[in-house]
Amino acid sequence: RINSARLWDSLEEMAKIGPGVAGGCNRQTLTDADSEGRHLFQRWCEAAGMTMGVDTMGNMFATRAGTDADALPVYMGSHLDTQPTGGKYDGVLGVLGALEVVRTMNDMGVRTKRPIVVTNWTNEEGARFAPAMLASGVFAGIHTEDYAKGRRDMDGKVFGEELARIGWVGDEKVGARKMHAMLELHIEQGPILEAEGKTIGVVTHGQGLWWLEITLTGKDAHTGSTPMHMRVNAGLGMARITERVHQIAMSHQPNAVGAVGQVKVFPNSRNVIPGKVVFTVDIRSPEQGKLDAMKAEVMRAAHAVAKELGLGCEIEDVGHFDPVTFDPGLVSVVRGAAERLGYSHMDIVSGAGHDACWINRVAPTVMIMCPCVDGLSHNEAEAISEEWAAAGTDVLLHACLEVAEV
Amino acid sequence: RINSARLWDSLEEMAKIGPGVAGGCNRQTLTDADSEGRHLFQRWCEAAGMTMGVDTMGNMFATRAGTDADALPVYMGSHLDTQPTGGKYDGVLGVLGALEVVRTMNDMGVRTKRPIVVTNWTNEEGARFAPAMLASGVFAGIHTEDYAKGRRDMDGKVFGEELARIGWVGDEKVGARKMHAMLELHIEQGPILEAEGKTIGVVTHGQGLWWLEITLTGKDAHTGSTPMHMRVNAGLGMARITERVHQIAMSHQPNAVGAVGQVKVFPNSRNVIPGKVVFTVDIRSPEQGKLDAMKAEVMRAAHAVAKELGLGCEIEDVGHFDPVTFDPGLVSVVRGAAERLGYSHMDIVSGAGHDACWINRVAPTVMIMCPCVDGLSHNEAEAISEEWAAAGTDVLLHACLEVAEV
Ligand SMILES: NC(=O)NCCC(=O)O
Ligand SMILES: NC(=O)NCCC(=O)O
Repeated sequence: RINSARLWDSLEEMAKIGPGVAGGCNRQTLTDADSEGRHLFQRWCEAAGMTMGVDTMGNMFATRAGTDADALPVYMGSHLDTQPTGGKYDGVLGVLGALEVVRTMNDMGVRTKRPIVVTNWTNEEGARFAPAMLASGVFAGIHTEDYAKGRRDMDGKVFGEELARIGWVGDEKVGARKMHAMLELHIEQGPILEAEGKTIGVVTHGQGLWWLEITLTGKDAHTGSTPMHMRVNAGLGMARITERVHQIAMSHQPNAVGAVGQVKVFPNSRNVIPGKVVFTVDIRSPEQGKLDAMKAEVMRAAHAVAKELGLGCEIEDVGHFDPVTFDPGLVSVVRGAAERLGYSHMDIVSGAGHDACWINRVAPTVMIMCPCVDGLSHNEAEAISEEWAAAGTDVLLHACLEVAEV
Repeated sequence: RINSARLWDSLEEMAKIGPGVAGGCNRQTLTDADSEGRHLFQRWCEAAGMTMGVDTMGNMFATRAGTDADALPVYMGSHLDTQPTGGKYDGVLGVLGALEVVRTMNDMGVRTKRPIVVTNWTNEEGARFAPAMLASGVFAGIHTEDYAKGRRDMDGKVFGEELARIGWVGDEKVGARKMHAMLELHIEQGPILEAEGKTIGVVTHGQGLWWLEITLTGKDAHTGSTPMHMRVNAGLGMARITERVHQIAMSHQPNAVGAVGQVKVFPNSRNVIPGKVVFTVDIRSPEQGKLDAMKAEVMRAAHAVAKELGLGCEIEDVGHFDPVTFDPGLVSVVRGAAERLGYSHMDIVSGAGHDACWINRVAPTVMIMCPCVDGLSHNEAEAISEEWAAAGTDVLLHACLEVAEV
């Protein structure tokens, strides 16, 4: 078993970097806080006897040598970046849990045949630079590095420049590494494990996702002196499409979700009818058919609303991935480890996107989940128990020992 | 008749201060650009032989002496501040038109019995600091000066501190001045005069208005892993209320308008269900009964939507005024002047709020309107013709000559 107090201390220590305003974290990708968190992680890895490599997307790879230098390594990890009002565990547990696995192996003097690599993927959240899982996406060959480095945040800052600014452009070519397997521990970010009273989620599948960005163009005009029939109100269009996204997701229950998360209104003055709005749509389903149907319905609804209000309508595809099936062999390994350790467990579908969803395209991959209180995540109040964190990390340890071959 | 080329030059000159991004202006109240515009206005007034007084709200009063020093003065003016993406004429025509009236009187060597005062009211727009017509409201005793000075903009900056920062806190007590009459020239900001082919609007009434600010509180949560039935989506609540505001205004046609203009979403991240939204509602009618009914309906609708979605709901009254009836004697003076000058004219109700709406509470007041292209205002593309500007200012001149007694 891992050292649960040490793991918990490290989680608390990391949470002090980029603290939030309500007990959580704001350690958004490529900020100064992100850089500080990376330095701390690197110091911890080196103290645990690992060697750090960084690729040109800023992905971090800390290697613990195996007894067979030629064997392909086993990767474990997740991400250290957070939402603007994020929690202390989303991503962080997967990175520091992997580090704790190595620390535990050191304590026990265990050597594995295969090298073990603890990974921090850059910009998993996608909150500052869309899409999410950007750097693991480049690693898996989904995006070009040029595309990723040209992404802009809300203030117009460019990904590549921000990565250079915080000093984390490494020298490794992205995606050059070959993996024997990749294991990602993560909090569920949903309510199912807690509701079912299970400690471990054996993740068999991941939801597919579409991220759209809709721009509606109407006409700024005075709220007082413009008669109702002369208005071209982009804000009203956004309201109608927001409602339609909700209805479309509801009509595909179960196994479908949809919402509008980010909104920009122009000129955003209380006595001006909005002349332009830009807003984001997030729709997901583990079923390819539902995902495709929902996307088509949202696009149709947006164009129909725009037409009825006389608005211009542009829809940008900001990111998408198909539903994911994780490696069945690794899924069995995780299920077996939970079983042997005596943790209650169930098979589960990941509601969120994860770096593992992209890495699954280039290497056998699996995820392990532990519960979080009320299923709450992307919220500073996100919470897990020390026991849940330890259980997930124990399963990670045992799965890793098996896959990396003691 | 006034000197139309000189008036037009001054309008163009003022528009260079705080230029917009699309040909209009961004000279929001209490910005550096506002201060620069004020200095230019003061220089012009002094060059025309007037003496400037400034009150503690930054309201500017340029006096041309009358032959009877004891007679109550006639006031003319409007405001020099603009929307963030505003036009070059909204408010500015009323101030520089009044200045042009004085310049024309100087050219003609005309003296009036009553002093004439050209006025620039601080923060008419209310875009940066709600409510609108804030400083004329203090002048008229509607708001206390403490209330006004404590208003905050979106960045949390305080009105009183910003007024001091730009150096325009005067020494006069606000509202101490007594007026014989107040005349405000303004562009219509609506489409009626143009549609009816009239050059002058004789403003008999003004719409009443309610400005509400609604805060909905839900729960930030992950857009992917939070099942639909567990969401408390404040953004969806805002969408529904935005639609209801529109429907309520539509159900009170004609003579009613309503819209949501300003929106803030928290945390405003594309994979977070909005946990909080703050947005503004603007509803208006020239009929007291409709105005009261609409306000009650919007409040009921907001609370009902909040209840159906499980959201917290707070509604703040940010500003309101009842429908206005302008001084019948002055209305006749304006109508007579338009008639004598041979300008086509019609009686009209102001769709927008104006400083005249508040000053009407403490002095006989009237407004004169000229058309604007497509009724478009609160938009950088706001446009008027030189002829329209001149016609409105001619009427202002003749009304002023009559009221100030040549
Ligand atoms: N795990 C997680 O929150 N990833 C961000 C991408 C997503 O929204 O699913
Ligand atoms: N004239 C004008 O736009 N005033 C601002 C207050 C309002 O919105 O009516």
